Order: sequence, then structure tokens, then C-alpha cells
Amino acid sequence: MKKNEEVTIQSETIFNGRVISLELHDVKLPNGRESKREIIKHPGAVAIIPFKEDGKIVMVEQYRKAMERNLLEIPAGKLEKGEAPEVTARRELEEETGYGCEKLKHIISFYTSPGFADELVHVYEATGLYEIEDHLELDEDEFVELVEVTLEEAEEYITTQRIFDAKTAFAVQYARLKENK
Amino acid sequence: MKKNEEVTIQSETIFNGRVISLELHDVKLPNGRESKREIIKHPGAVAIIPFKEDGKIVMVEQYRKAMERNLLEIPAGKLEKGEAPEVTARRELEEETGYGCEKLKHIISFYTSPGFADELVHVYEATGLYEIEDHLELDEDEFVELVEVTLEEAEEYITTQRIFDAKTAFAVQYARLKENK
Repeated sequence: MKKNEEVTIQSETIFNGRVISLELHDVKLPNGRESKREIIKHPGAVAIIPFKEDGKIVMVEQYRKAMERNLLEIPAGKLEKGEAPEVTARRELEEETGYGCEKLKHIISFYTSPGFADELVHVYEATGLYEIEDHLELDEDEFVELVEVTLEEAEEYITTQRIFDAKTAFAVQYARLKENK
Repeated sequence: MKKNEEVTIQSETIFNGRVISLELHDVKLPNGRESKREIIKHPGAVAIIPFKEDGKIVMVEQYRKAMERNLLEIPAGKLEKGEAPEVTARRELEEETGYGCEKLKHIISFYTSPGFADELVHVYEATGLYEIEDHLELDEDEFVELVEVTLEEAEEYITTQRIFDAKTAFAVQYARLKENK
């Protein structure tokens, strides 16, 4: 038994969707009492920080329905079943930006919302970018716009909340730490 | 109409829970086609990066049911209805760590999982920490353990994945940038 483990007494799958599923667990707490946990299951995702030779970061702007607004983010995408994260990273980079990369380096993996979801994002740094002619196309329900930004612009966009999500905020700090080295 | 807006044709609330709710939207895409969007609604949250005088960061370890494991994170918690984020931040800091703070500074706010959830986390830096006797107690279904770590230990815990979530990874980078200044 793990420290402070919450053991499932019974669970129910409320919803099984294309992206996420929702489970409701009755759990036994460490003090013996019972509680309920609402849990989102997600297949996991990758995010890529693509650096151009001149230091610019390649990002994509897209409409995010959950927030009903556009956000400027680093390229990212869901893992397909059985697909290695590095393969997903190269595919998403090509689909969303038209770039291939000579070097793809794993930086970190993190859970995005550990309080209610198991989504794990694997973050990669992509360098040695080159344009791919006849590159892979986006999924038919994806509409993204390429925006290449300097580090200073990215930091400015954080204050104006055009950049407004955790993985991209992490990426901008990563770029700043790299620049300061 | 916003750029690339996805207009809801109809929507359905699948689940309305204690923490999250789940909506399913039929949307009209920018190209006129239709698709479905699975959306998690969340009340929003705060996270606090508490720095002690000696530079140590105050974190909490707790069992996270979605991952079925313990994670070491910066203190955090959900917004109560109508509560200002700064009030939530002071309350969660006190409940989870027993510390009050003289100074609470807003650093950034970010969406954690913009692809499927509207959870917005407001991140604060807390300094001038002092222990509160008879401090606020945790919610009755919360069990957390205080761990005070140096920046070097925090960076080590990222590589060993004891620290394994986006907001805490962001916090450790923030501390490193501050240290390097």
C-alpha cells in the first residue's frame, strides 16, 4: 500500500469520448472515511519547443473551444494509441508547422492537472529545423496559424495573455534559461 | 466572430460533479463542417510558490488518485465560488503548510490543459513566511505532508519524477531564474 493511498471501493465510467473519458471513484481515505474522486483519463500528449537558427520560437495560434478564444501555444498533440512520444512529436511538428527537425531532445514530462486528470505531456526541444515540402496535413478539424516569435515577444505575449497556457509558459522560461546560460 | 471560431450548434451537460463538469458540444468548424468537442469545466485554482528566508521552497506531498501515486507539488487549491484568487491563495497556503506570508505577489495565470479543459491556475509567489499557531485545517478528505526543499533538491526531484506536474515544474524554473538574477 502506498503512503496515503486512496483505495477504490467501486468505480463507474460516466463517459467515454474521442479524447477523454470520465470516471467516478468511491474511495476509502487514509483515515478510513469515504469520499468521491472525479477523474479524467487522457491518452497523453506531446509538446515541442521548436527553435529556429535565429533563436525564434515557432508557435501556433488556434481557437480553443474550452476557453472560447484563440491562444498562442507551442505545437502539441495527443498521443495515438501505441505511438512512441518521439514519433508523435515529429508528426505534430510537421503537421502544425511544416517543419522537420534534425534534433529532437526530451526535456521534461509533466502532468498538467494532477487534481483531476491523468494527462501527461512529454516536452521536447526541436532544433535544426528545415521546411518540408508536401508536408503532412493537419487533422480535418484543426485550424492553426503559424507565428514565429522572438523570446522577448513571447515574454511580452505572456503579460498580454496571448500566451496563456502552462506548457507554453514553461517553454518561454526554458528559452530564457537557455539564453541566459 | 472570432478568428477560426467554433460555434456551438448544440451542447449537452453529461456530468455535473463536485469539482468538474463535462460538456459535449456539436460545433461548426471554420470550413463549415461539423465536429464534436469534449469540454471540462473547472472553477479555477491557485498555486503558491512559498520561499523561505534561506531560499528553500515549501512544497506538499500528496496522493493523487488520477495517477495512483504521490506527487510533490507546490501548494494549490480550487477557487471557492465568488472568492478572490488572492484570498484562496492565502487560505490554501495556511491550510496546507501552516504558514502565513507577509507578501503575496501574482506571477502568472495559465490554463493547464487548453485542449479539453478551462481550468485556469493563478500562480503567486509568497515571501515573508511565518508559522501560524492554530492554523486553518485541511479539508477532511485531504492528506498532505510538508516538504521543504532547496532549489537543487527540487531540480533533482524533477529528474527523478517525484516532482511531476506542470505548475511545480514552472515554479522550479521560476526559482532558478530568480536565483540566477
